[in-house]
Amino acid sequence: MSRASLSEPVAGNGLLHRRLFLMHGAAAGAALLTATAAPAAPLDVPASMKTPGVPPSEYGERSPHEAHVKRIPNGAPPSAGTGGSRTPLESLEGVITPSSLHFERHHNGIPDLDPDTHQVLIHGLVERPLMFSIEALSRYPLVSRIQFLECAGNSGGNNAPEAPQQSAGGIHGLVSCSDWTGVPLAILLEEAGLKPEGRWLLAEGADAAGMSRSVPIAKALDDAILALYQNGERLRPSNGYPVRLFLPGYEGNMNVKWLRRIKVTSGPTMTKDETSKYSDLGLDGRAKLFTFPMEVKSLITSPSGGQQMKGPGLYQISGLAWSGFGKIRRVEVSADGGKSWAQAALTEPVLSKSLVRFRMPWHWNGNLSVLMSRAVDETGAVQPTRAALMAARGANYRYHYNAVQSWNVSAAGEIGNVYV
Amino acid sequence: MSRASLSEPVAGNGLLHRRLFLMHGAAAGAALLTATAAPAAPLDVPASMKTPGVPPSEYGERSPHEAHVKRIPNGAPPSAGTGGSRTPLESLEGVITPSSLHFERHHNGIPDLDPDTHQVLIHGLVERPLMFSIEALSRYPLVSRIQFLECAGNSGGNNAPEAPQQSAGGIHGLVSCSDWTGVPLAILLEEAGLKPEGRWLLAEGADAAGMSRSVPIAKALDDAILALYQNGERLRPSNGYPVRLFLPGYEGNMNVKWLRRIKVTSGPTMTKDETSKYSDLGLDGRAKLFTFPMEVKSLITSPSGGQQMKGPGLYQISGLAWSGFGKIRRVEVSADGGKSWAQAALTEPVLSKSLVRFRMPWHWNGNLSVLMSRAVDETGAVQPTRAALMAARGANYRYHYNAVQSWNVSAAGEIGNVYV
Repeated sequence: MSRASLSEPVAGNGLLHRRLFLMHGAAAGAALLTATAAPAAPLDVPASMKTPGVPPSEYGERSPHEAHVKRIPNGAPPSAGTGGSRTPLESLEGVITPSSLHFERHHNGIPDLDPDTHQVLIHGLVERPLMFSIEALSRYPLVSRIQFLECAGNSGGNNAPEAPQQSAGGIHGLVSCSDWTGVPLAILLEEAGLKPEGRWLLAEGADAAGMSRSVPIAKALDDAILALYQNGERLRPSNGYPVRLFLPGYEGNMNVKWLRRIKVTSGPTMTKDETSKYSDLGLDGRAKLFTFPMEVKSLITSPSGGQQMKGPGLYQISGLAWSGFGKIRRVEVSADGGKSWAQAALTEPVLSKSLVRFRMPWHWNGNLSVLMSRAVDETGAVQPTRAALMAARGANYRYHYNAVQSWNVSAAGEIGNVYV
Repeated sequence: MSRASLSEPVAGNGLLHRRLFLMHGAAAGAALLTATAAPAAPLDVPASMKTPGVPPSEYGERSPHEAHVKRIPNGAPPSAGTGGSRTPLESLEGVITPSSLHFERHHNGIPDLDPDTHQVLIHGLVERPLMFSIEALSRYPLVSRIQFLECAGNSGGNNAPEAPQQSAGGIHGLVSCSDWTGVPLAILLEEAGLKPEGRWLLAEGADAAGMSRSVPIAKALDDAILALYQNGERLRPSNGYPVRLFLPGYEGNMNVKWLRRIKVTSGPTMTKDETSKYSDLGLDGRAKLFTFPMEVKSLITSPSGGQQMKGPGLYQISGLAWSGFGKIRRVEVSADGGKSWAQAALTEPVLSKSLVRFRMPWHWNGNLSVLMSRAVDETGAVQPTRAALMAARGANYRYHYNAVQSWNVSAAGEIGNVYV
């Protein structure tokens, strides 16, 4: 494809071909650009070149100039120690979430567990109930995978009748992505000797909420791990230090933190955490139990809610897509509120049950625009419109909201959340 | 392959098949295991379940129980603000290095740059000299890649006549791996209008060392980026905040931090940083200039120097491999000092110019053993033995040391660095 044809719109309201930026010269040809002419005079020598800087350190910190990038509180906690905070997705790039900004959701605060004394029990329908210290677990075979974790309640604010005017992270920041390393649960269950009648397991945390969830044995034997490491180092306290259950693609709450016990059972235990909460209330007033994988989803993180356009011209739309069912096959973007769509570029590698960064060039002409993204996963599932999702589920279906996010761009360049 | 055959050694001194741990039951069959029988009495309810924990926070920290995991100082700094620190590779898993533990190497300390005033100049052999603010750069098309960065001087301690008795990180910790995001330099050079006679560029930092290096234009137009983000968030100060040059696979020093200027030139500038240092002194007393890509390399991080085996039994050997020339094709492991080798499992995805985690099951019988790893990259280059490297280069060739690392395991289970 020629440079000229790449600069032609591929969908309404200025969407350009995803390969535009991959071709040298295309950007300049499209007059992207926000640089300024260099001054004729030589550069001043800045103060930073005249005085030695600070020395190395044992554990580095970020620049004080970045202190404004913070997790976003979930709102007033219902009781002491309870609550959560969200990843500021609009301030991040790539797919790895720095562990200090990984979302957190606690049901009775973060316990302080000593890795030298904490243990994990595997019991119930097994031949040999076993106890594992953290040191013992650390000696087992480890596997590593870059995968997302998403709270079942993520994006639930968009259930409200009026579109909440928050940032991308404020609405959707209960999703993060890490390089997780841990012991395959299958190996531990095998060692304990799984009995044939063991069809489920109960996972229980050592926190003051006694968080506990039921997990089908098929998932436990598939890709479940007892995670010990997150982004290279040991888990953070807010993510279950020293050990958590990690169930790739499954709703966050099931990935029990501060894990102290796995009991193999013949059926689900029906804990408080899967009956009074994390069940899905349908239009008929009945609650559906056990909706485990997080469905296909995407959102544009830049430009996004609360940001301000810098005037008409060429922009790169950037966003994230993911599916608890596997890989993302395709992400489409619309700049005209869903009238026309074009395919975005996916950043390699596209991994299963991981965040994927998508990007798309867009020439904003300064008019009112509505930006949307729509992901399709490898099972063929398509991210629904909000109208379709609400019609199917009703407003009381609190969890697993995965509808298309629409951002309104005003002629003044203000960006807000809008229902289309 | 059957479970029984996977438990048969595939090379001398107890190396087992890399797929052993992938087959359920194989581990138990091989009597790995370090769990203990569970007590008959019910678990005590720990204190952590009786008192609410601590609430969420805006920017999380690691557990105080992990405070011993620190970067390793490079030794006494030659002058104020100068020096470096190494990634404690032996304490990490997966491939992402947490930014707080990314290695650092400064030639006159870390400057404090204000992202609102710092600018990057592109000038020299271009049609239109341009100036870029950080805000302007942030609006350009971004690309993201998970790639390693290695200091040219990494592992140089193994040039010494006596094997240094340090940890894996102490010897080899001037390598780290991040999810880097930045603007392709090709786009910026295109905008500035590269003149045909521009064959090199000079990159200069805004630090008090005025670090400056020459880069061939082919690399600048290939995969070079001006990096703005590291593991999701903005660069850390010790890694060039707010902007650095990132040249995938090239020696660390060329990836100029705190970038203030790129000057397009007809030839290399011969700066102090590429003549008095970062040149390679050969056996004939002549120094070779401009050895850019880091060569194929690997090391076992567990078990590794300074660690202690926990008694005979089954272990998982874990390590890292990388090549500045592309992807790792294969890693082989030896447990008998190089007499026999077997292939390790590589963790997917195997990315170009990235760290790759390899793993291998090993049954240690409690005897004196020598563990080694040997990587082969997609060009077919094979990591050399130390003897071959020293013979070819001599002891004064200070940089680009990539020989096989050997760890000695004594009958008492003590692990040390050994030259084989």
